[in-house]
Amino acid sequence: MVHFREELDELQKRLLEMAGLVEAAIHGSVLAFVDRDEQQAKEVLWKEAQINQRDIEIDELATRLLALYQPMARDMRFLTAAIKINGDLERMGDLAVNITERALSLMREAPIRPLVDIPRMAALAEAMVHKSIDAMVSRDEQLARSVLTSDDEVDSLQEAAYKELVEFMQGESTTVPRAVDVMFIVHDLERIADHATNIAEDVLFLVKGIDVRHHAEVRQEHITQR
Amino acid sequence: MVHFREELDELQKRLLEMAGLVEAAIHGSVLAFVDRDEQQAKEVLWKEAQINQRDIEIDELATRLLALYQPMARDMRFLTAAIKINGDLERMGDLAVNITERALSLMREAPIRPLVDIPRMAALAEAMVHKSIDAMVSRDEQLARSVLTSDDEVDSLQEAAYKELVEFMQGESTTVPRAVDVMFIVHDLERIADHATNIAEDVLFLVKGIDVRHHAEVRQEHITQR
Repeated sequence: MVHFREELDELQKRLLEMAGLVEAAIHGSVLAFVDRDEQQAKEVLWKEAQINQRDIEIDELATRLLALYQPMARDMRFLTAAIKINGDLERMGDLAVNITERALSLMREAPIRPLVDIPRMAALAEAMVHKSIDAMVSRDEQLARSVLTSDDEVDSLQEAAYKELVEFMQGESTTVPRAVDVMFIVHDLERIADHATNIAEDVLFLVKGIDVRHHAEVRQEHITQR
Repeated sequence: MVHFREELDELQKRLLEMAGLVEAAIHGSVLAFVDRDEQQAKEVLWKEAQINQRDIEIDELATRLLALYQPMARDMRFLTAAIKINGDLERMGDLAVNITERALSLMREAPIRPLVDIPRMAALAEAMVHKSIDAMVSRDEQLARSVLTSDDEVDSLQEAAYKELVEFMQGESTTVPRAVDVMFIVHDLERIADHATNIAEDVLFLVKGIDVRHHAEVRQEHITQR
């Protein structure tokens, strides 16, 4: 079983590396947008290719460990969580590419005023990814819960951004196509935050054995064994 | 092992039921929008509560089967696919709720002209969900591949809808908030189609043992064993 523990460590290490790539992709996509930086955009597309490759490798590794070692209880929970976390990370990579594509399209046009609070949203979303993965590594319940709190803040920023963008479009119709692009960037950042929240929920399940999805916590706490 | 086969059948049956609920939720959300029907909206919210409940139950069942029977090869692939398919179905339920919330908000306002091709997009998306799950049950490669083709059609409809909505907003600024709601409904339908595509990809992996995500097919075909 020593070998199995090493393999689990390897899996965790790979998830950590994948998360690092995803964070860098998110960061780069927002820089591409804010700084109108085509080089950053190219970097994101390159990173996403690596993320996709790792997505497949991590899936294969986790599935192989499930089949080979037939783990029980906590290890089984970690392996199924790893498959889900991997999926969430991969989708964040896709969303970083979406943001990058919008940024590339916006670079070809004159800039519009309201960058709304995209840098702040992006910083929050990146921190959520980082914290959710740290919480996985350290099995830290409090850290995982802090991610759920940040998600509420991202939602508020999103609301404010939509309101501002709608007013902007109404005031100046020529900005509509560009403001729509910005609106979808806001939307994609909010979805990235949602995926980080999914990961934090998986970590809570891993640590506590309780399921916090769909506010099922109360229900689950009555179940003594799973 | 007879009992294990029965449990696998039970798992598949539950996925099928969940998919039925999800299809009904998607259908209801679009009716709520097109017919401005509040009753339909309530039905969707009720269905989503059931979908969330089943999401947890299916996850528990699949994880329990993994732990209890320690299956190999094809059965292992089915169980990990089931966990992913369940996740995709659950997110489609969330998206049906998003559409419903936009529909409820739009009911309070005067209708705007362009319903664009939402009924057609919705019909395509629903058919994709249905086909992807049918393909899972019958392990039908051709059917799974047809879902991937439909996804391209949904993407084209989405592009056309965005274009139309942008022009509409530019022509009449008072419509902007409503047109933005419609735009997000289009976006959510496109995401539903994406989740159906994920399921079809999982089915192809299940049937063929090849991974078609990220166009990895070529790579995977060189690997003789997984």
